[in-house]
Amino acid sequence: MLLHKLNLFLFVSSQENRPIPEPGPNEVLLRMHSVGICGSDVHYWQHGQIGDFVVKDPMVLGHEASGTVIKVGSGVTHLQPGDRVAIEPGVPREIDEFCKLGRYNLSPTIFFCATPPDDGNLCRYYKHSASFCYKLPDNVTFEEGALIEPLSVGIHACRRAGVTLGSKVFVSGSGPIGLVNVLVAKMMGAAVVVVTDLSASRLQKAKEVGADFTIQVKNETPQEVASKVESLLGCMPEITVECTGVQDCIQAGIYATRSGGTLVLVGLGPEMVTVPIINAAVREVDIKGIFRYCNTWPMAIALLASKRINVKPLVTHRFPLEKALEAFETTKRGEGIKVMLKCDPTDHSP
Amino acid sequence: MLLHKLNLFLFVSSQENRPIPEPGPNEVLLRMHSVGICGSDVHYWQHGQIGDFVVKDPMVLGHEASGTVIKVGSGVTHLQPGDRVAIEPGVPREIDEFCKLGRYNLSPTIFFCATPPDDGNLCRYYKHSASFCYKLPDNVTFEEGALIEPLSVGIHACRRAGVTLGSKVFVSGSGPIGLVNVLVAKMMGAAVVVVTDLSASRLQKAKEVGADFTIQVKNETPQEVASKVESLLGCMPEITVECTGVQDCIQAGIYATRSGGTLVLVGLGPEMVTVPIINAAVREVDIKGIFRYCNTWPMAIALLASKRINVKPLVTHRFPLEKALEAFETTKRGEGIKVMLKCDPTDHSP
Amino acid sequence: MLLHKLNLFLFVSSQENRPIPEPGPNEVLLRMHSVGICGSDVHYWQHGQIGDFVVKDPMVLGHEASGTVIKVGSGVTHLQPGDRVAIEPGVPREIDEFCKLGRYNLSPTIFFCATPPDDGNLCRYYKHSASFCYKLPDNVTFEEGALIEPLSVGIHACRRAGVTLGSKVFVSGSGPIGLVNVLVAKMMGAAVVVVTDLSASRLQKAKEVGADFTIQVKNETPQEVASKVESLLGCMPEITVECTGVQDCIQAGIYATRSGGTLVLVGLGPEMVTVPIINAAVREVDIKGIFRYCNTWPMAIALLASKRINVKPLVTHRFPLEKALEAFETTKRGEGIKVMLKCDPTDHSP
Amino acid sequence: MLLHKLNLFLFVSSQENRPIPEPGPNEVLLRMHSVGICGSDVHYWQHGQIGDFVVKDPMVLGHEASGTVIKVGSGVTHLQPGDRVAIEPGVPREIDEFCKLGRYNLSPTIFFCATPPDDGNLCRYYKHSASFCYKLPDNVTFEEGALIEPLSVGIHACRRAGVTLGSKVFVSGSGPIGLVNVLVAKMMGAAVVVVTDLSASRLQKAKEVGADFTIQVKNETPQEVASKVESLLGCMPEITVECTGVQDCIQAGIYATRSGGTLVLVGLGPEMVTVPIINAAVREVDIKGIFRYCNTWPMAIALLASKRINVKPLVTHRFPLEKALEAFETTKRGEGIKVMLKCDPTDHSP
Repeated sequence: MLLHKLNLFLFVSSQENRPIPEPGPNEVLLRMHSVGICGSDVHYWQHGQIGDFVVKDPMVLGHEASGTVIKVGSGVTHLQPGDRVAIEPGVPREIDEFCKLGRYNLSPTIFFCATPPDDGNLCRYYKHSASFCYKLPDNVTFEEGALIEPLSVGIHACRRAGVTLGSKVFVSGSGPIGLVNVLVAKMMGAAVVVVTDLSASRLQKAKEVGADFTIQVKNETPQEVASKVESLLGCMPEITVECTGVQDCIQAGIYATRSGGTLVLVGLGPEMVTVPIINAAVREVDIKGIFRYCNTWPMAIALLASKRINVKPLVTHRFPLEKALEAFETTKRGEGIKVMLKCDPTDHSP
Repeated sequence: MLLHKLNLFLFVSSQENRPIPEPGPNEVLLRMHSVGICGSDVHYWQHGQIGDFVVKDPMVLGHEASGTVIKVGSGVTHLQPGDRVAIEPGVPREIDEFCKLGRYNLSPTIFFCATPPDDGNLCRYYKHSASFCYKLPDNVTFEEGALIEPLSVGIHACRRAGVTLGSKVFVSGSGPIGLVNVLVAKMMGAAVVVVTDLSASRLQKAKEVGADFTIQVKNETPQEVASKVESLLGCMPEITVECTGVQDCIQAGIYATRSGGTLVLVGLGPEMVTVPIINAAVREVDIKGIFRYCNTWPMAIALLASKRINVKPLVTHRFPLEKALEAFETTKRGEGIKVMLKCDPTDHSP
Repeated sequence: MLLHKLNLFLFVSSQENRPIPEPGPNEVLLRMHSVGICGSDVHYWQHGQIGDFVVKDPMVLGHEASGTVIKVGSGVTHLQPGDRVAIEPGVPREIDEFCKLGRYNLSPTIFFCATPPDDGNLCRYYKHSASFCYKLPDNVTFEEGALIEPLSVGIHACRRAGVTLGSKVFVSGSGPIGLVNVLVAKMMGAAVVVVTDLSASRLQKAKEVGADFTIQVKNETPQEVASKVESLLGCMPEITVECTGVQDCIQAGIYATRSGGTLVLVGLGPEMVTVPIINAAVREVDIKGIFRYCNTWPMAIALLASKRINVKPLVTHRFPLEKALEAFETTKRGEGIKVMLKCDPTDHSP
Repeated sequence: MLLHKLNLFLFVSSQENRPIPEPGPNEVLLRMHSVGICGSDVHYWQHGQIGDFVVKDPMVLGHEASGTVIKVGSGVTHLQPGDRVAIEPGVPREIDEFCKLGRYNLSPTIFFCATPPDDGNLCRYYKHSASFCYKLPDNVTFEEGALIEPLSVGIHACRRAGVTLGSKVFVSGSGPIGLVNVLVAKMMGAAVVVVTDLSASRLQKAKEVGADFTIQVKNETPQEVASKVESLLGCMPEITVECTGVQDCIQAGIYATRSGGTLVLVGLGPEMVTVPIINAAVREVDIKGIFRYCNTWPMAIALLASKRINVKPLVTHRFPLEKALEAFETTKRGEGIKVMLKCDPTDHSP
């Protein structure tokens, strides 16, 4: 029933049956162009729920997006109609303690595209806070703009991990999030990145985006995985970015990380996990999680504009918005890396 | 057998049956004055082992110590005979990567008093690296000097936790280490400190050293403990310092800490613990352990000299070195807070 | 002519000739209670200009303030009529890059009370962003609430300086800003604070608020001042907080600060100054300025509520709003430390 | 007379008239291979003095060096004869406060190659602390090993500046130190680097090592230079690395840097400079110097081994040790970028 509603709504949305919204004073109205499908979109579509976030009413999906400004609110000065923009999907609703401290992603009342009950932007027309729309330079495509969202997860994770010049980094898991962490870690100056996964084909993709080493995990114990990482690198990595959420992988992440280093938890798994926390504690291996991201769009745009990073290979499938269902089915089957929906039938640029 | 050896050796040591050591070029010879007994001393005495550290040969105990320089090595310039000093028990044996980075406590080859196989300083005469002996000002007593060691655990924990002006701090556990964390957190500018423990009498001590609130835990769930902390403070604490090592307490520490805050693990418990790690991760509550301390003696001496902190109430028992066994039995029974052994029969100053 | 306008307007304001403002959706209307006079208020009154900020139209002065909520906007949830609040005078007008990074004080379009052209709050009724009004606990007075503003300058300076446990701090200048830095540095755990000034009576006040040492400067060279500081402390201070803006004092601040330490510039002097910048550079003494403050009110309120800091002695004079001119004249003459205007004739509480 | 001595000694040194030194317990004896000539070497050779460091006795020059271990002291475990190593020229003589804090470069008693009175390593055989010799992987050449020294200046400067992903960086001066800062800033993830210099040919080299933009400065005022930088970048850079030491350039660096950013002073000029310090202070532009470097060799080797950075183009001239005088003359004339002396006639590998 719920899923039906979502399916339906997704369809309705794609058919432009909603009125075009009117931007408020500090908002802009956008004609949407490219919207990537995220695993969480598929999860809400299939299960109607992620953790405490439950879809109760029809909700527009989509939060990896870019589009063109077609109308600006009265108070907007830095954007004008015609500007191509990337959209940061999280917009704090109030300037609370977290917002004041520069960690607005932790604000409990934040608006976030396609996290219930907030609508996403997989549609034709969408209005958004102007402060969270970032103008794209001419040499950055709409799809690159949409990819800033998944890239931001990697930026926030690598930044919290303290990746820097010469870092040796272990990325656990070679799905889309693992891949962006490989990309970002290398961009931040990491000397060596080693990636683990169960799947040889996913590890192949890690190689393609810059991983120096890969380890196909079979039935090794967490300690054995840690040993293999150390052997390959010639030393223990200062940083581990765990992208699977699997208990064994979190354990391996602790064992693998050098004393004084950092384990960042990006993947989400079961509520309770059993971990060798004393091993981490007495070696001062810090354990940090991430919640989405903050302060990543400007640096991502600067990088894309400078052509220092190539995210284009991440897009493996494209569908027009009318074929949204097919696009979601493709993502659900785990094909390719990133499926992109094209919302503007009049503009065929990437 | 092992324990017998330790008992014996402790006694032998106290009877001065060892030759007086000769300081090397960068060492000083000390006439020991005051040495506090730590829980780890008692543990080695009783069990001959802590984790991977196993006592295989007779070992002198003691690492919370102060004494008087009676001889200096040829290369020593900042100390001279007659100087009263506090002893930092950990001395890196090589300038390795950790030492170069200012985290010498993590150096795997570090010498550490009374961690097997390294002898401690609960004896009459002891030589030590001059660089790790810190001159005490006239207005700081030997016992204050010896107490810098446990105080350092609190300094390192609160510093890693990021305690600062106005912090709200939850200290879990009111034993000696919990108490020094209360003391240090307040000194660092914490606005409010709340302490939990099973024992009303231990909580009473927390009050005496500066805790603003105490909670006597009975059979509450970890979530309930977290709720009580929040209720008392009127908000969630930014920082939790966990000093028990008990799984339920670690869980309570995660639930209790404000989003974006830090949980520091000081107490050591079982190797594997089950924790709500996703709860910590998605709220960006960092989990950090500590291993001993580094760079704490100079700031501790500055504080003691400035009379801004009063550690004297921590000393509840004193014994001459000849009565070391009695002193250890007292500590083992959990009486008082800190038992101090007096090694110099000719100097009765505190 | 300009000054006349200001004088007049100040008077008009005090006579309640303005309509009571209506709060917007995210604003609160306040009945003002206590407003301290700052040196900048006097400067605008006398000179109509500070740097690039020029008073072109009549402007209400006052930005060290507290009051009572009497009306809340439709979107305000954390405050209600009757709440006593302290007012943070700087309110970002847009969520720009600085705001997102947690450094909203640097936002170029920020609203700031009594910085032209923005009106201050030295009046009977005043509306302000609800997010920048902080509820005062019952045990914190209105005057303490108003003093959070000058206290914030000290908090921001000491925080940027990295004052921490055991710090040795040199505060250059013993005016109101020097005094709050002494107070805050001690609260943050500084072991020793030494203060310099030309005036013996101002140094006496530094002693009263907690300075450990004072130096009355006469015609010493900057190097000589630095030497005296080192002699008194027994070592060079890690931190210098310069509160005068005088070139010789900035020079002394560089010479005095220990290698690897920080000099914070709080006092403002001439546009160009000649400094021994190589001396600072090759000893890695960082030079940092401050612009107002950010993220200080919550921690200041927590401290005031915990009774860990006593700012009450800073208030040396009180006037009813009707006698604003007399109050300004008093401040201009440099009498006392802080002059407080009382805006609510119906409430005589401090 | 002094210069003559130096000239002579340089020659004597090159003729192997000194006895081969014997390594101490924690030292290694090296057969030197490649030694780069630094501006400071030329300065000591020509002027016998840099600041307070005065050459009083004949001194061996050279501190950008690599060689092969031919003998190890009794306490050395991580190196063995035959290992190829890069040499970090600064070795702390005592574990003082700076060393303990991880800032050993600030230790006042540090040994440093070719800073009087300490001999450098431009010779055939040289002994050095084993802890400050770093094994080179097979795929890193001796010359790359020697270039770690100038590279380290860039690493330390960019690290202190906080260069990170997406940074916009202004490098003032395009000499060897400016060039390594360009290289390092890009490696650390900088999106855009703009370089200024008087010389078009030097700017050409900046382009070759990765600068995105260059500005040939003529007679612009500091403010005009700052404006040009902003125009080129489309915004003010967060970071400025000043490598000339010229007063006008320091001023331009302050004006150019974005509020909240950092100006790092690498170039050394006159003792006293006149700067718009209020401009920096009220925009919270931090001013930081650097003294040499610390903790850079391991990360540099990791980078070189990973082939992520290409420093080989920096070497423009090579001379055998016998032709040291010719090599110094070449450097003095400012030809090329880096002149390399080859000390081992039996090994012609780069």
